[in-house]
Amino acid sequence: MPHTLVPSDRVERVSVYGRDGTKLGSIERLMLDKVSGTVAYAVIKTGGLLGSHHHCPIRWDALRFDPARQAYQTDVTLDDLRAGPSELDDDTFDWGDRSQPHPHYWTV
Amino acid sequence: MPHTLVPSDRVERVSVYGRDGTKLGSIERLMLDKVSGTVAYAVIKTGGLLGSHHHCPIRWDALRFDPARQAYQTDVTLDDLRAGPSELDDDTFDWGDRSQPHPHYWTV
Repeated sequence: MPHTLVPSDRVERVSVYGRDGTKLGSIERLMLDKVSGTVAYAVIKTGGLLGSHHHCPIRWDALRFDPARQAYQTDVTLDDLRAGPSELDDDTFDWGDRSQPHPHYWTV
Repeated sequence: MPHTLVPSDRVERVSVYGRDGTKLGSIERLMLDKVSGTVAYAVIKTGGLLGSHHHCPIRWDALRFDPARQAYQTDVTLDDLRAGPSELDDDTFDWGDRSQPHPHYWTV
């Protein structure tokens, strides 16, 4: 029987691949709802363009772990991520300072 | 309005204090249910006795964050933790390899 639990520190830094096989980046952190104890969304740190990184929200249930690759797979592409909501390295936006889950995360 | 989200990497390594004010240890990791996207429990790494550490499961909702102290507070004591279920450093037990949440975590 496959187990259903995963340690938080095994999720962070794991690579994420898109629908077309392109590496999107890696999981930077998970955003947890303190009250309900649920994962609101994951934040993917994309590979840098000219040395900068985008930090993109994606729903936890949009990520599937591929044991053979030891990486997450999702139906989102890099173009999708780039067209969607994100924060840049230098943004002062505090991912933890919001009263609701990110309204625009990828839901695929 | 207080925000309700917290980043996973800000939870890990945060100190945990017991009912009587004693430091129990720090949060080592969270165990997440992959399917439901919920935090099954946290694992507290206790301060070492003779250099060894115990790794004790505790329910997420048994932990309250104290902003003034920048630490978690719980009603469990160190004696409670020591009397309860735990794993030692050298145990080969895989915290991620279980089909159900830990059956004996502290529920206070």
